[in-house]
Amino acid sequence: MAVRLDLNISLDGVASPSGQSADNPMGEDWGRLVAHYIATKTFRERVLHDGSGGGTTGVDDRYAVEYFQGIGAEIMGAGMFGLHAFPDDPDWRGWWGEEPPFGGPVLVLTHLERAPIEFANGTRFEFVSTSPEEALARAHDLAGGADVRIGGGVGIARSFLAAGLVDRIHVAISPIILGHGERLWDDLRNFDTGYAVSSELADSGVIHVTLTR
Amino acid sequence: MAVRLDLNISLDGVASPSGQSADNPMGEDWGRLVAHYIATKTFRERVLHDGSGGGTTGVDDRYAVEYFQGIGAEIMGAGMFGLHAFPDDPDWRGWWGEEPPFGGPVLVLTHLERAPIEFANGTRFEFVSTSPEEALARAHDLAGGADVRIGGGVGIARSFLAAGLVDRIHVAISPIILGHGERLWDDLRNFDTGYAVSSELADSGVIHVTLTR
Repeated sequence: MAVRLDLNISLDGVASPSGQSADNPMGEDWGRLVAHYIATKTFRERVLHDGSGGGTTGVDDRYAVEYFQGIGAEIMGAGMFGLHAFPDDPDWRGWWGEEPPFGGPVLVLTHLERAPIEFANGTRFEFVSTSPEEALARAHDLAGGADVRIGGGVGIARSFLAAGLVDRIHVAISPIILGHGERLWDDLRNFDTGYAVSSELADSGVIHVTLTR
Repeated sequence: MAVRLDLNISLDGVASPSGQSADNPMGEDWGRLVAHYIATKTFRERVLHDGSGGGTTGVDDRYAVEYFQGIGAEIMGAGMFGLHAFPDDPDWRGWWGEEPPFGGPVLVLTHLERAPIEFANGTRFEFVSTSPEEALARAHDLAGGADVRIGGGVGIARSFLAAGLVDRIHVAISPIILGHGERLWDDLRNFDTGYAVSSELADSGVIHVTLTR
């Protein structure tokens, strides 16, 4: 029933580097931000469908495993689904190929009208134009008692944080200073005071910080 | 010979909370930012001159000990010395009473003209109106081969970082999200790439991150 958010950020709080384009949809330096995550065994299996058994199995991978556990529905923004990069392509089905790593209902917040898209592995994208609160109510219905994840991007994440709707926030802080892009935490005055905070270091140098209420 | 910087920042990178006034010179929420440091045995002894032997002796205190080791001269801004709060008081001698915890030469960057101030414990404040580079050359002369510390505040720290003058940066990141005030890292594009980065967790929850080149 909890609402969860997981993001990769830099030491200077950047969750979404600048320099995004259709060719480079995640922005410059995105690779530096997510290197630890892409290196995990779980990312390779779940997202890349790499059956070789390779990848890291330490602290970073433990968080990657948890990322996929207990989620009944996800909410993401239009940009994360790819509608900003490909707004005029009615056949766009997301970045993830024919086996999107969700396996369940995903609400995409957009003002564009799109018919739902279903995949054989259970992933079903549904396009809605609502407030964060309304999207969350719909996601809880779809999740059937399991947790709801706010998938991103950072603008969507910030709107749910600002509305006080997120119960557990996990940020994987890469020890890099990007100096450009959209920051996660701005203007959330004394945001932590309603949460218990714990931290853990990975061998990769990444600092995993979890805020739970 | 190294140039060192130590700062306390929040998870959202704030080094100097807003809300500063003569009555509250460090700004709102400053106490939350430095609670771990003020709790250390070393801070109590060196800054508060508390001879009771109390205070924490863990990771936070180890960094507090290192903070005072090997420094031959310090550079600080006018605000940190107190000239913004008390610009018209020619007798202002800093916030630290008659035993300032420096014990050596301190350059205060200011456009105000002030005569040097000397204390019995060896602390000597010298007021200069120069560029970061010129101040650093003067500080190296005064340090006699020992390290130079950039004391702060955050504006001074950022000007030395932007000029590429700092060899070792230690930030004690408190797991709090202030959401107001002046951030340390903004606009330092890919700043970390010239440094090796290491991190350590304290029992207090503080994350000590050190960048060394």
